[in-house]
Amino acid sequence: MGRVTGRRRVVRIRDGAAVERVDTLAGEEPLEIRVNGESLAVTMRTPGDDFALAAGFLVSEGVVGRAAELARMAYCAGTDEDGRNTYNVVDVRLADGVPVPGFSARRHVYTTSSCGLCGKATLEAVRTTARWPLTEGPLLTPRVLAGLPDRLRAAQRVFERTGGLHAAALCSADGELLDVREDVGRHNAVDKVVGRALQRDALPLAGTVLLVSGRASFELVQKAVMAGIPVLAAVSAPSSLAVDLAEDAGLTLVGFLRGASMNVYTGAQRLGLPSPGAD
Amino acid sequence: MGRVTGRRRVVRIRDGAAVERVDTLAGEEPLEIRVNGESLAVTMRTPGDDFALAAGFLVSEGVVGRAAELARMAYCAGTDEDGRNTYNVVDVRLADGVPVPGFSARRHVYTTSSCGLCGKATLEAVRTTARWPLTEGPLLTPRVLAGLPDRLRAAQRVFERTGGLHAAALCSADGELLDVREDVGRHNAVDKVVGRALQRDALPLAGTVLLVSGRASFELVQKAVMAGIPVLAAVSAPSSLAVDLAEDAGLTLVGFLRGASMNVYTGAQRLGLPSPGAD
Repeated sequence: MGRVTGRRRVVRIRDGAAVERVDTLAGEEPLEIRVNGESLAVTMRTPGDDFALAAGFLVSEGVVGRAAELARMAYCAGTDEDGRNTYNVVDVRLADGVPVPGFSARRHVYTTSSCGLCGKATLEAVRTTARWPLTEGPLLTPRVLAGLPDRLRAAQRVFERTGGLHAAALCSADGELLDVREDVGRHNAVDKVVGRALQRDALPLAGTVLLVSGRASFELVQKAVMAGIPVLAAVSAPSSLAVDLAEDAGLTLVGFLRGASMNVYTGAQRLGLPSPGAD
Repeated sequence: MGRVTGRRRVVRIRDGAAVERVDTLAGEEPLEIRVNGESLAVTMRTPGDDFALAAGFLVSEGVVGRAAELARMAYCAGTDEDGRNTYNVVDVRLADGVPVPGFSARRHVYTTSSCGLCGKATLEAVRTTARWPLTEGPLLTPRVLAGLPDRLRAAQRVFERTGGLHAAALCSADGELLDVREDVGRHNAVDKVVGRALQRDALPLAGTVLLVSGRASFELVQKAVMAGIPVLAAVSAPSSLAVDLAEDAGLTLVGFLRGASMNVYTGAQRLGLPSPGAD
């Protein structure tokens, strides 16, 4: 596969010094699971063990429980613009007599239209859906970013008590916390921040920074782009697809933001730094 | 609301001593988002700011971008067995002229049938769907559990390089790691472990322990139950609904497993401990 990890150039800031290097990131790509040819689910996953992932998903859903209930699994459809299989669509054929999950048993869930069949389609879908371009600004210093995690932690009311919540904060370019929300799901915490901004008609959120307590997935970058937020900073690691989308959309993506240390994956010019060179 | 956090009795083990106390957990309940009366998505969220969550979700999906595009939002439908509103269904009415996300634009995604309209329905759905009851065993010592995180970390190949992956491990009752999978999504890592077990026809996974690197959500407890795994141990915090489902299904749920310290939320008898008293 070779897609379990991806390598991207990054500007690493340590003790005030910026050094360019190559960083290894966790791979993230969409996988569509079909049963007897019909689409059942799309999940953002790290490529590898895809048949096991599809099988385990069907166990969790109560569809199968014995190996003999699976007739076969194969990569199908999903070719990129050069006609190559993306290996991002798995079709599961159930053995004769195993009930196919019925249409009535399903919930019609609107997943993001950007959950395409491959990373390429995914990035394009976000680009065509976005309402507003990201503004060039703000111009921030790494020092301002460095102070944000402590402020977020201080503002997290529920986390302290439960240890079980993700947080998302909207910050100004000079480091002020404008809003903080917490949730068991990191995507929900971001949706709450963005939704509150919409309710006060403050979109696009030009000139702001979105800070998240965990990792930066593709989905979080997408949410920042759709809300017009030009800078996303995460306390932990980004995925490969998160970096790709950030690059494509012109968003500044910072990861491993811990004290004065951070990695700048894309859009370094907003921090007054030279952009990491092309691969 | 009062559901942002929940309180549950727990057996806390520190330095070999077990003490019962009350622990505060992050609240987790399903929220169904409807647009103009039609179901669009279900997300597991921490109650609170639900209208903002629905609005922000619609921003991310490119449906709205201005406050005026939302006509109104209301809690609807979703009553529990006593006829009380569950406050777990939000209906969003779009302003005239705002295109409703079309059926064709949606993906028909099969989300778990246990994503009901309230916690109660959720637990019942899992109970009626499960194929096999959880076995009484295994009988484990806290000492065996205490050794698992270090073994998991040693076995995590990709995490070390990227810092961006969740891990799930299937372990025997004497502490042997039977399988380890990594993924950007914790639910995917568990599906991969369960799917590989299905492929070797090893379900139900009676007598085993599932170890996860992060938090224990409702979804992970559900996956353990559906695979017949009687013990779930998480390095970080469980949610309130995770504990409720574990209690209901008879699963042993351990959280904050860090060295010799851990919290036992349910099923303490499998560790040779008295169960935490009822609330």
